[in-house]
Amino acid sequence: MKIAIDAMGGDHAPKSMVEGTMKAVEAYPDLTFTLVGDEQKIRPYLTNDKNISIIHTEEAISGDEEPVKAVRKKKNSSLVLMAKEVKDGRADACISAGNTGALMTAGLLVVGRIKGIERPALSPTFPTIGGEGFVMLDVGANVDAKPEHLFQYALMGSIYAEKVRGIKAPRVGLLNVGTEDKKGNELTKAAFELIKESGAVHFIGNVESRDLLNGVADVVVTDGFTGNIALKTIEGTALSVFAMMKEALTSDLKSKLAAAVLKPKLKTLKNKMDYSEYGGAALFGLKAPVVKAHGSSDANAFYNAIRQTRNMLESNMVGVITETIEKTEFVTKEENGGE
Amino acid sequence: MKIAIDAMGGDHAPKSMVEGTMKAVEAYPDLTFTLVGDEQKIRPYLTNDKNISIIHTEEAISGDEEPVKAVRKKKNSSLVLMAKEVKDGRADACISAGNTGALMTAGLLVVGRIKGIERPALSPTFPTIGGEGFVMLDVGANVDAKPEHLFQYALMGSIYAEKVRGIKAPRVGLLNVGTEDKKGNELTKAAFELIKESGAVHFIGNVESRDLLNGVADVVVTDGFTGNIALKTIEGTALSVFAMMKEALTSDLKSKLAAAVLKPKLKTLKNKMDYSEYGGAALFGLKAPVVKAHGSSDANAFYNAIRQTRNMLESNMVGVITETIEKTEFVTKEENGGE
Repeated sequence: MKIAIDAMGGDHAPKSMVEGTMKAVEAYPDLTFTLVGDEQKIRPYLTNDKNISIIHTEEAISGDEEPVKAVRKKKNSSLVLMAKEVKDGRADACISAGNTGALMTAGLLVVGRIKGIERPALSPTFPTIGGEGFVMLDVGANVDAKPEHLFQYALMGSIYAEKVRGIKAPRVGLLNVGTEDKKGNELTKAAFELIKESGAVHFIGNVESRDLLNGVADVVVTDGFTGNIALKTIEGTALSVFAMMKEALTSDLKSKLAAAVLKPKLKTLKNKMDYSEYGGAALFGLKAPVVKAHGSSDANAFYNAIRQTRNMLESNMVGVITETIEKTEFVTKEENGGE
Repeated sequence: MKIAIDAMGGDHAPKSMVEGTMKAVEAYPDLTFTLVGDEQKIRPYLTNDKNISIIHTEEAISGDEEPVKAVRKKKNSSLVLMAKEVKDGRADACISAGNTGALMTAGLLVVGRIKGIERPALSPTFPTIGGEGFVMLDVGANVDAKPEHLFQYALMGSIYAEKVRGIKAPRVGLLNVGTEDKKGNELTKAAFELIKESGAVHFIGNVESRDLLNGVADVVVTDGFTGNIALKTIEGTALSVFAMMKEALTSDLKSKLAAAVLKPKLKTLKNKMDYSEYGGAALFGLKAPVVKAHGSSDANAFYNAIRQTRNMLESNMVGVITETIEKTEFVTKEENGGE
């Protein structure tokens, strides 16, 4: 299995990307890598050349560039060349910690959609209190979603949870403003019926955002706008609470001493909420695994994204989604009049 | 000023409602109250009759009843009779800690909208790290909002922040998936233009949910579906982090001892995140202040909701909204072709 890596994307590029890749080369002899980026900057972090090749380019897309424009104009950027490796069949999957919008655009325009999937979905895995985690999709690939899109997210999320995360009959929930069947806006009401009537997934109905971190579902389906708001609210609230805690616990000497004793525990707690432990956010619905690692990825977080990508390849997730969509497509066509 | 109280709504009714009212009678000699509910159950908590009258009824709406049906059928419920006091001019405002949906329905059907306001908005005030707080609207009164509704929320939220919370030129932000001007879904893109071009509020543009608790804006405008998701995500995440912290800090003796030293600090922290300190969630856009106190309100939280309602009355917030909408209505009509 060959994975193409955007060596120049991310806050700590290329160091963390190359170091994470070296770690993966050690751990998985079945993987080979193509590092795309500035060879001169990549070389210093290469500990050996085994199973690694480099495509040199000096062009890169930065985090603040307008995604569609950047992908269209910068044909020789590390991100676009990486996607092209997948498109041309020279790599089986690709990973970038760079500009999320640009990766989504390159995924859509260069790698391409699976036939029958109308919109790809950005699908990160979140930590939960119990540690089991859940995948939420979409968190921002498609901000104006239709009920059929949400139905397809349910299918893809369920396949991922089962094949890649090893959960039997994953519980699929629809993110909504109440748990009752008839709750919600026009979109969720229609999506609820579609998912329920299809019988294609183990649908547990509506779930509320206050229960997400309790592990109320293994797969949480939502439109890209709402999912993005939920994602950033979880991040922001957790960070704010930790920040307030730090302030409170260092406000006087007595507190400082007690806090010092608790430091390892608090650190463990913070790690539990650490998204990087859960790999990257995969883009579901493309012809090959395209994974967005966290922008702030260190070598270990990037290694976890590689491991996750390997799991997606090994389980043939894209193949399973393709077959499933072929079989179930008639459901969306019949019920909704198609595209 | 006379405030009608639903004495039977809330987890600790009628005890907390009556005790909170008694506290308000002490603090504010300019307030009189009508307690609506079962007189036999109310009496034990009344310490004196000064400025308090009772409307006796044994009918009540419970928390799990379908709101619209309940309001239509239970004409003699404490919640509906309370709203009727306002409608008939015998009270200037009303407060319930009961069924949120039923209160919104009674607000709409019994109290009625301000002319020109298309949809009322449920508008709680949230705590922030710095302690200044912000008001977010709508968090669930109207789950399928249009751009004009969001524009009216911006107006009403700004008036509330200025008149009731005393913030000069309150910063109004639009909740969105990015801070750039062109970000968002169809709804937020259209609302952005509408709010910006009106010049009617101090509009700071798009704000992201990860920055909410940092106090990025004084007023955060969003549709009822997204706002409800954000509200419940903040609540759920804060509770989850505190629960994990508690578990971590009581897992062994050494931690327990250190945690005991920190207990007052941690309690202060938890109180900082306590919504009840900020009063209730007001329904903006109705002909009189209608306030939803927290379902779990104790006497103090209910007292805070009364204090907030008094501020709304004293600042003539409803009058200011009415005048402002009259003046600015042409903006929405011209730009959007009206209702």
